[in-house]
Order: sequence, then C-alpha cells, then structure tokens
Amino acid sequence: MSLNPAYEAIGKGFVQQYYAIFDDPAQRPNLINMYNTETSFMTFEGLQIQGAVKIMEKLTSLSFQKINRIITAVDSQPMFDGGVLINVLGRLQADEDPPHAYSQVFVLKPLGNSFYCQHDIFRLGIHDTA
Amino acid sequence: MSLNPAYEAIGKGFVQQYYAIFDDPAQRPNLINMYNTETSFMTFEGLQIQGAVKIMEKLTSLSFQKINRIITAVDSQPMFDGGVLINVLGRLQADEDPPHAYSQVFVLKPLGNSFYCQHDIFRLGIHDTA
Repeated sequence: MSLNPAYEAIGKGFVQQYYAIFDDPAQRPNLINMYNTETSFMTFEGLQIQGAVKIMEKLTSLSFQKINRIITAVDSQPMFDGGVLINVLGRLQADEDPPHAYSQVFVLKPLGNSFYCQHDIFRLGIHDTA
Repeated sequence: MSLNPAYEAIGKGFVQQYYAIFDDPAQRPNLINMYNTETSFMTFEGLQIQGAVKIMEKLTSLSFQKINRIITAVDSQPMFDGGVLINVLGRLQADEDPPHAYSQVFVLKPLGNSFYCQHDIFRLGIHDTA
C-alpha cells in the first residue's frame, strides 16, 4: 500500500470525530469501534494497555461529565502502509478541575474504506513555565 | 515482521542518542545518518519536510549553540512492522531564550540490525496555564 495523499484531511477529521465522541459521556462507550480487539495499543499517562476491551475499561473509568477542550495543533503525516500518524496538542478542563495542557499521538491503520486506531499515546500536563 | 519486545529500551536509547547528537552543534550534522534520503518525513513547527537533505537543511539552520534539555516523559510502543513509536515530552532552553515545553514524536523503522527515523514531528511551547 502507498501514501494516502488525503492524510491531512484524514488526520483532522479523525481528531474531530474522536473527541466529539470522547467528550460526550453518553457516546464515550462507542469509542470501542475506533480500536481493534487485539492489535490496538494505548499508553495512558504511562500505563500500557492492549486491546479494545481493556482500552475501553480505562476510558469509561474516567468519571468526568463535562470537558472543555481546545486543540492547539494537529500535525499529520502519511505512513507507508496507507496509515496516518497524528500528533495533537491541546488543553482540556474536566469538570471543575484546573485546565491542563495535553499531548495525544494516534496512528491510524487502514481497514477497508476506513481506519482504526492502532496506537494511542496520551499524556497530560506539559508545563511551559519553570 | 513482528513486534520487537525491546521497544522500551530501543525508544529510550534512541532518544538519548538523538539528543546527544542534536544538542552538540559540532555533531549536529551527523543527524543525517538518522534519516532516509527519500522516505523520512519531518513536521517542524507545522512545516512539512521530506528526505534527509531537506531535513538537515532545517536542523542545521537552527543557530543556537547551547541547549539545556530536560526530558519529562518518553512513551514507546512496538509497531507491527518491527518499528517503534516514541512520544517525547520535555523542556528546552536554547542559548539565553526562555525555556519552552516541547513535544516530539518519532517513528523508527527497522533497517538491518538498526533503525532509522521515518517520521519526526516537533512542536514547541505547549502551555499549561491559561
């Protein structure tokens, strides 16, 4: 397979769709459709998780109801298996917590006419002051 | 090819080696050996660059002599082509500039007994305050 020239639109579209589902507690369980049963990896604040079921156990254990999210950068690159590498930087505020900077990396893998999330690395709280 | 069980050590080792070369202006031109002539992609502060020569034009145009770098997180995941996905968060201070948080994503691709950097996404300045 070769480089997908639409990688930029795919990256931005995925990020928009993923967070629309993530940020709505009623829809959040549907994120399971983004991951593969066996071959999806997540690293959540350093915790390594494999497979859609365990990933969803983690994501649905997050108890906040309200998220304010600001995306500050989405950088995408085409990959040689037809996938897309995405780096997201942003800020989020859960319920009444203080806002935090965060970083999230996704690797999308082609599957039929769509993609699933094969790699996901999330880290909160990157400080820009000493 | 399959998952490399040493992904964690490979990720940490690469990051240490890469920045040791990057942070020394005399050695910085040697970074060209980390990238492929054709198939390496870099996104530097949103600017998209392809191939080792153009990547090195960018990296050697950075004129600072002294870098103070603190790595705050290195998260690695094994990839199904035997490669390694790495997300680095840190802080760096170039010469007398104010320190900045930064994020850098690497995708290492196996090549013989070693790896080269196929994807590199760099972003400065992720703020954790409003």
